[in-house]
Amino acid sequence: MEWTDHGFRMLDQRRLPHQEVWLELHSWFEVAEAIRNMTVRGAPAIGIAAAFGMALAVRHGEDREVADRGLRASRPTAVNLFIALDRIKNVPDSEVLQEAQAIEAEDLAINEAIGQHGLRFLNEIRPGPKRILTICNTGAVATAGLGTALGIIRVLHRHNLVAEVLSCETRPRQQGLRLTAWELLRESIPFRSIVDSAAAFAMASKQVDVVIVGADRIARNGDTANKIGTLSLAVLAHHYRIPFVVAAPSTTFDSALADGRGIPIEERDAEEITEIEGERVAPAGTPVWNPGFDVTPGDLISAIISEQSIYQAPFAFGVGQ
Amino acid sequence: MEWTDHGFRMLDQRRLPHQEVWLELHSWFEVAEAIRNMTVRGAPAIGIAAAFGMALAVRHGEDREVADRGLRASRPTAVNLFIALDRIKNVPDSEVLQEAQAIEAEDLAINEAIGQHGLRFLNEIRPGPKRILTICNTGAVATAGLGTALGIIRVLHRHNLVAEVLSCETRPRQQGLRLTAWELLRESIPFRSIVDSAAAFAMASKQVDVVIVGADRIARNGDTANKIGTLSLAVLAHHYRIPFVVAAPSTTFDSALADGRGIPIEERDAEEITEIEGERVAPAGTPVWNPGFDVTPGDLISAIISEQSIYQAPFAFGVGQ
Repeated sequence: MEWTDHGFRMLDQRRLPHQEVWLELHSWFEVAEAIRNMTVRGAPAIGIAAAFGMALAVRHGEDREVADRGLRASRPTAVNLFIALDRIKNVPDSEVLQEAQAIEAEDLAINEAIGQHGLRFLNEIRPGPKRILTICNTGAVATAGLGTALGIIRVLHRHNLVAEVLSCETRPRQQGLRLTAWELLRESIPFRSIVDSAAAFAMASKQVDVVIVGADRIARNGDTANKIGTLSLAVLAHHYRIPFVVAAPSTTFDSALADGRGIPIEERDAEEITEIEGERVAPAGTPVWNPGFDVTPGDLISAIISEQSIYQAPFAFGVGQ
Repeated sequence: MEWTDHGFRMLDQRRLPHQEVWLELHSWFEVAEAIRNMTVRGAPAIGIAAAFGMALAVRHGEDREVADRGLRASRPTAVNLFIALDRIKNVPDSEVLQEAQAIEAEDLAINEAIGQHGLRFLNEIRPGPKRILTICNTGAVATAGLGTALGIIRVLHRHNLVAEVLSCETRPRQQGLRLTAWELLRESIPFRSIVDSAAAFAMASKQVDVVIVGADRIARNGDTANKIGTLSLAVLAHHYRIPFVVAAPSTTFDSALADGRGIPIEERDAEEITEIEGERVAPAGTPVWNPGFDVTPGDLISAIISEQSIYQAPFAFGVGQ
């Protein structure tokens, strides 16, 4: 993402991996739409984009209150969006752009710190090269820098500690197959892509040492909303006694929520499932249930790694943690 | 499937649901290729097709030994294929076609009996309308008749006992999204399609009363090979204390195997994952692990329903069962 004299530039994640198309957005409204239609995705990246959306509103002298509400309505589940907008809210017009740039710069440092904490924690629980299963994309395109879960994988790889990544496809939008594969290939990190439903067989056949995922919102008891399919991996990891680790900046923690029941779960369009690349796959009239996220209970999570610390179960954020 | 004066006709399942294309096959070799490339799929249907493939070999005076070996090599996991061919093996040329037709007719009766046993068992464990989660396609196109797991659903629906089916997409080939949706729509059975990874969230949010799946091979201890993703559903059902039921004709039972370790698991082409409808999705060079099946341990299965009986855990087939 890049701020220019003309607007706010971002890579269109929907076109990856086949095309690297940069879009230039000129209004907060275009940014809100880009978040909604997943041109930009990944909880930290959404927060950064929303902050720059507010900077566009200021540049054009638009009503900040309206822009704030419009951006908040773009995607309900990730809390980073709301935290970034809360932070911008009381900043004077003249400092909004600077604040957005600060949020972006901080995210870079946060990713590096998460990676370092992850390196330390994973080496403690499993010395030597690791076989890591992950889902969705939590990498460079989802954040300002290294990524969260994928940031840990990058730092491990720097130390030759990645034996293999098993990357779940992540239906319906296939962020794993499209984006994570694209990032892993570029960095020559060894991996294989699998369909989401093959994770159980991978674990049962002892091909997974640890599961690492990102997060969109974390409640005080550790209940974690993340991409649909995360809960499945957590239950499986629990069954096969494999550590299950969440990597997330502290902006993902929602101290207003005692547990995951308060997290709104976005239901997305049926066409995300019934069509692929614009081609209809399902028969006409197929009804669909398409929740974008699920909530993993904190008691299925071995550790949550933020830029601040390594938290281990049981979790009680905001109450001494 | 239909035997004619010209050859053996079958619906091309790869073209469903958008086109109903009937192919006429003229040699055992074409039948073997149709099994391999999944023009015909579903364990019972594969067995029937192989039997008619032998009838084609006889019609053309070809070496039956060669045809038998060629058909056996088409797909390694489903045992129904081998059982049908074993049954044909010692039949004189003049009776091969009749035997193939008998196998098909028996499958029809088997499906109906599985459906009746399923109705009785499910009404015992859960009276009233049921919410059923299933995977893959185990219906009319996978068998000669009603289907196995989907056969039970059809019989329940006749009695107004289906509240809803949650039909898993079944990546990579999407048999659930393409074929099961097509069959359910045709019979007006209420359902919603979900991505495979949403099954956990469906169970956690109490939307599933029972999971019913088919099988490709069952060992004496109940270990069951079935479509990739079945193991995941079994672990999840166990975690959420939801009954997990396997529906399969007794030809699916392999009495030669003490447990699931002896079941060969077919690994299929990477393109099944990296391309959809011939369109490349993953970046070029993406490595893939694509097992077609997984093995669910018998101790995660509540009941196995065949045309002969309702078997409940612990299983010991061939030793008193």
